[in-house]
Amino acid sequence: MQISELSDRSGLTVQTIKFYIRENLLPKGTSAGATRADYDQSHLERLRLIRALREVGDLPVAAIKKILASVEDPDVGLHELFGTTQYAIGPHVTPPDDPHWRAAREDVDALVGELGWHVSEHAPARDLLAQTFVALRRLGFPITLTDLRPYVSAATEVAEHEIGRVGGDAPRARTVHSMLVSTVLYEQVLTALHRLAQENASARRFGTD
Amino acid sequence: MQISELSDRSGLTVQTIKFYIRENLLPKGTSAGATRADYDQSHLERLRLIRALREVGDLPVAAIKKILASVEDPDVGLHELFGTTQYAIGPHVTPPDDPHWRAAREDVDALVGELGWHVSEHAPARDLLAQTFVALRRLGFPITLTDLRPYVSAATEVAEHEIGRVGGDAPRARTVHSMLVSTVLYEQVLTALHRLAQENASARRFGTD
Repeated sequence: MQISELSDRSGLTVQTIKFYIRENLLPKGTSAGATRADYDQSHLERLRLIRALREVGDLPVAAIKKILASVEDPDVGLHELFGTTQYAIGPHVTPPDDPHWRAAREDVDALVGELGWHVSEHAPARDLLAQTFVALRRLGFPITLTDLRPYVSAATEVAEHEIGRVGGDAPRARTVHSMLVSTVLYEQVLTALHRLAQENASARRFGTD
Repeated sequence: MQISELSDRSGLTVQTIKFYIRENLLPKGTSAGATRADYDQSHLERLRLIRALREVGDLPVAAIKKILASVEDPDVGLHELFGTTQYAIGPHVTPPDDPHWRAAREDVDALVGELGWHVSEHAPARDLLAQTFVALRRLGFPITLTDLRPYVSAATEVAEHEIGRVGGDAPRARTVHSMLVSTVLYEQVLTALHRLAQENASARRFGTD
């Protein structure tokens, strides 16, 4: 197909597609004359993936480039690819050099240890969690393991389901797409449903009508 | 206390505190001479709350102003306040005028209806969820109620726990703080734990060591 059809079918402008080609996010089309290039289904799928990562995951182009490079490299295992993707999603917290912060981070590390979870010590989610501990304590809501239990249990259930859904025996391209989808898109599914469920619980408890 | 002590104890610079006063996020101190003002515990608590909403919730000043105005107004019920807070948190999705989008939004509305949830039709989380439906379909992962079940169940469990934790019989200021905390801070707790649990599940399924 020509670039105009690729644009129609992906919902992205020709300008955006050309930008992605220049940035090496998308391979060039096959040359079909001096001013024409042909694109195929793989270009369309790649564009849809980029669009999902941009729009839903809100990932910067540099992060997407890094993810796509890992996707293309058959030596990159699924677990590593998973890390590359997950660590690229924001928000990224820069830990201040501060005793409250260090104490919170130690609590997070202790929690992960107690749960027996296999999580890299560089996982940005550790700092994300530590940030909430610091803020909660500052506001006079010290956090205990009991407070966290419902979250731990909900997170575990959902994560087991997600990793189970990534079929390890499908072709690599499909498995990889499915993993990106789990990591980026389903995180937003959980956030959105959490907010809807909160509104419902609040309406039933505090609502007047 | 003087503004310098308020700065030390809140961890915010004097400049930032003065900015919040100018923006009416923080009431002025009591005048104690021509160039001095006195601040008390309520100023400190207010600053800690603003800081948590800024740093963890990443809320813009305008949104915090709106939330604080509702906090101060005793006529604003808890459920309304809950909505004001939750609707102020991003990301905010602007629905395009597009048949795929409309179909996805109808599916979300049908889901909320089936679940019997009391949720305003203007809740931004509906569009947030619709956005993921559109992206998943575009990528060839059509979403079914079965796929959503683990998320619905996790979200419900956590939300019930959260609303239950907001003690309706505590003094209003405390209840309100506790609700803001649930909405803004615990959402990040859930996200962070979800990512940690995913990494653990991925390590056990796909990891090599």
